[in-house]
Amino acid sequence: MATTSKPIIVVGAGLAGSLLGVYLARRGFQVDVYERRPDMRKTRISAGRSINLALSTRGIHALKEVGLYDDIMKISIPMKGRMVHHLDGTLHSQPYGKNESEVINAVSRGELNMRLMDLAEAQGGIHFHFNQRCIGMGFDEGLVYLKDETTAHTYTVTGETVIGTDGSASAIRADMQKVGRFNYSQQFLEHGYKELLIPPAPRGEFQIEKNALHIWPRKTYMLIALPNLDGSFTCTLFYPYSGENSFESLDREDKVSSFFQEQFPDVLPLMPRLTEEFFANPTGSLVTIKCDPWHVDDKALLLGDAAHAIVPFYGQGMNCAFEDCTVLNGCIEQHGRDWENVFRSFERLRKANADAIADLAVENFYEMRDLVTDPRFILKKEIEHVLEEKFPDRFVPKYSMVTFHRVPYSVAMKRGKIQEEILDELAANTERADRIDLEQASHLIQLKLVDAFSEVMPS
Amino acid sequence: MATTSKPIIVVGAGLAGSLLGVYLARRGFQVDVYERRPDMRKTRISAGRSINLALSTRGIHALKEVGLYDDIMKISIPMKGRMVHHLDGTLHSQPYGKNESEVINAVSRGELNMRLMDLAEAQGGIHFHFNQRCIGMGFDEGLVYLKDETTAHTYTVTGETVIGTDGSASAIRADMQKVGRFNYSQQFLEHGYKELLIPPAPRGEFQIEKNALHIWPRKTYMLIALPNLDGSFTCTLFYPYSGENSFESLDREDKVSSFFQEQFPDVLPLMPRLTEEFFANPTGSLVTIKCDPWHVDDKALLLGDAAHAIVPFYGQGMNCAFEDCTVLNGCIEQHGRDWENVFRSFERLRKANADAIADLAVENFYEMRDLVTDPRFILKKEIEHVLEEKFPDRFVPKYSMVTFHRVPYSVAMKRGKIQEEILDELAANTERADRIDLEQASHLIQLKLVDAFSEVMPS
Repeated sequence: MATTSKPIIVVGAGLAGSLLGVYLARRGFQVDVYERRPDMRKTRISAGRSINLALSTRGIHALKEVGLYDDIMKISIPMKGRMVHHLDGTLHSQPYGKNESEVINAVSRGELNMRLMDLAEAQGGIHFHFNQRCIGMGFDEGLVYLKDETTAHTYTVTGETVIGTDGSASAIRADMQKVGRFNYSQQFLEHGYKELLIPPAPRGEFQIEKNALHIWPRKTYMLIALPNLDGSFTCTLFYPYSGENSFESLDREDKVSSFFQEQFPDVLPLMPRLTEEFFANPTGSLVTIKCDPWHVDDKALLLGDAAHAIVPFYGQGMNCAFEDCTVLNGCIEQHGRDWENVFRSFERLRKANADAIADLAVENFYEMRDLVTDPRFILKKEIEHVLEEKFPDRFVPKYSMVTFHRVPYSVAMKRGKIQEEILDELAANTERADRIDLEQASHLIQLKLVDAFSEVMPS
Repeated sequence: MATTSKPIIVVGAGLAGSLLGVYLARRGFQVDVYERRPDMRKTRISAGRSINLALSTRGIHALKEVGLYDDIMKISIPMKGRMVHHLDGTLHSQPYGKNESEVINAVSRGELNMRLMDLAEAQGGIHFHFNQRCIGMGFDEGLVYLKDETTAHTYTVTGETVIGTDGSASAIRADMQKVGRFNYSQQFLEHGYKELLIPPAPRGEFQIEKNALHIWPRKTYMLIALPNLDGSFTCTLFYPYSGENSFESLDREDKVSSFFQEQFPDVLPLMPRLTEEFFANPTGSLVTIKCDPWHVDDKALLLGDAAHAIVPFYGQGMNCAFEDCTVLNGCIEQHGRDWENVFRSFERLRKANADAIADLAVENFYEMRDLVTDPRFILKKEIEHVLEEKFPDRFVPKYSMVTFHRVPYSVAMKRGKIQEEILDELAANTERADRIDLEQASHLIQLKLVDAFSEVMPS
């Protein structure tokens, strides 16, 4: 595609904006990316919410498309399953996938972001403008309002079109909300989160199993841990904001220590700076944001968290945003510079899927903090893997559809509900996954997933 | 209750704010009411959204409490049922209630509002400040930001506490949204609305049945008409905003005439100024707004549309807001000036009910525009009235629970769903309401509404 006199403006150089920049620059567009924060490649800054992430199939597909997959794999740690830490110290391992290739990959948000920016710049035609905060947008003329954070100078720019990848607190979206008939919802969980660190052992060893996502499920709340390359683990405590047992009630160092001593006794010795970090680190909130439309005419589009912020419990926030970029790239392939049609197609392809993963992510909080300790839940997980082995074209576990396939999230959700019914029926008659009635299973799958369900399972 | 040095600030002198002013002034509070518009008693201004309204039991209860019921009845028109206008010109009447006392009452929004302001001022201790637009609020210090619309002067006031009755576009709520972890949603229907007039006949006679709410249901859209005292009817066309058949496509006078000629042939001759009004009157949008919390500490509370804007299809917007006032008055009775507890109790008592009527109101759009012409729906309505007659303590139609009772909306919604199942079962076996199996009915009611349902039907 030929270059144009006016650049495409991307607002936000986080993961979504940087990857989008790569896709756009590869198509020959001139691109200007405005980012509120300094250049993280030059200034040591916090990477923002959650310092490590779980990269899985949808995100990997995008990284493969832009040629960054191999590089990123070198700096990521495969997590083969959940490692459940019971209160009595016993461990229980639950594999995520059917084999060693179905793993999720812990990767540093900051590292990934920096490499995406490097890759974007290597395409040519793209310029990152750091310390430039977007403070809103006027849609009639496509004006983006910016403020130079170093000089406090405010100014406006216009482009061929504008794509807002400015995250869950999107300034572009805030101004869309003032345009007529904009559907919008923001729903907070009662739980907040706090990040804490398990440092590496003195010689850099991992202090707990490296290749797992660790969970300490405690029914109404939980602690999780993901590995980092340096041997440390980033732990996140998900706990109510207020009430009897809450971040609010943990207001003294001794209370924090007792709480960990009682609830996470195996972690306490691994966190020498627990109380210090607990009070130094902020308590983050967990919000689901849905809105529509995502675009205003041919003037502006929201993408990633700006369009659909989700809670982190399915590990899909980044993966979904990366899939957004893949899909938008396909829409540009199809409609060229007819931006209104590009944006409309994108929204038609993505909205139902963004809604689905948003709901799935909230549901998964209950699974992670509570169900993973339930014998019946564990049995059903085992039955799922048996069914997938026996009926590979017809039955893929919901978690796998979301994580290891690229079937639309909305289809994964619908099929997942039907599969849950099948699992309930099969689990009712047995206590061992290897003893389920395969004829009954075959019949149920044919009846409920094949005959009654019009949407096929894409491979 | 003794007066205090600082007044209570009420933002907005619409129906909710004016009635609330009456309740507060009667309790001896000093009250300052700030209203964006001029005093409608002195200046002829538009009454805002929908110029007539359907007053029913919840609203009547509040008017009785403040002693305004008899006066308002004198200026209202009872509507005994729906008058359905079929395309072929035939009429079908569907009573709302079980007898002549169960009617809804068409009343002028402007008249009602003015009488509420008069009544409030007659209590003493209350001052209305007109042409004062609230532009926001700072919750730390309880500062209300105001702008004098006549001088453009901006200033702040503080009070003992602040109650935002500033409607669906509430400025108080907009600033609450900036406070952390505020759950919020605004959802627009695809339909907009436009008001049109059927004037009185030359001698002031009503040109169609006076004591009815007229509906021209056309499956995906509808026209309705409510009577006014002067013999006219205010009609409202609910129609899609955009698309093939929409307000957008009705862009020429001849298209509007043909549309009415085809779809509402009996109305066309009664609307001599149709096309003129059609293009002069604005197309309004229909939004449902939900949020929580409704209060910030003891500093401010939202009430009425500001807290829970709903679509008009159950005729409950004003009635719900008036019930808010009744309930808030009860909370003040209980907790006095402990505003945080007053607000918290109010929210606990009202939130689920506001959510329920919001959902019921959206559902009722489908009933009004489509179902009212369905023979099975009509049969079920008739069966409902039989059941209410035979089992008056146990079965009250959903519409009646909402409209003629003060049972919490959330209970009406839950019981309504169960009752729908019962009606489906009974309607499956008969084609005449007077031939239903009363033993089966009694059994179903006992089983589903009495045994299985813990919440009793308040009278």
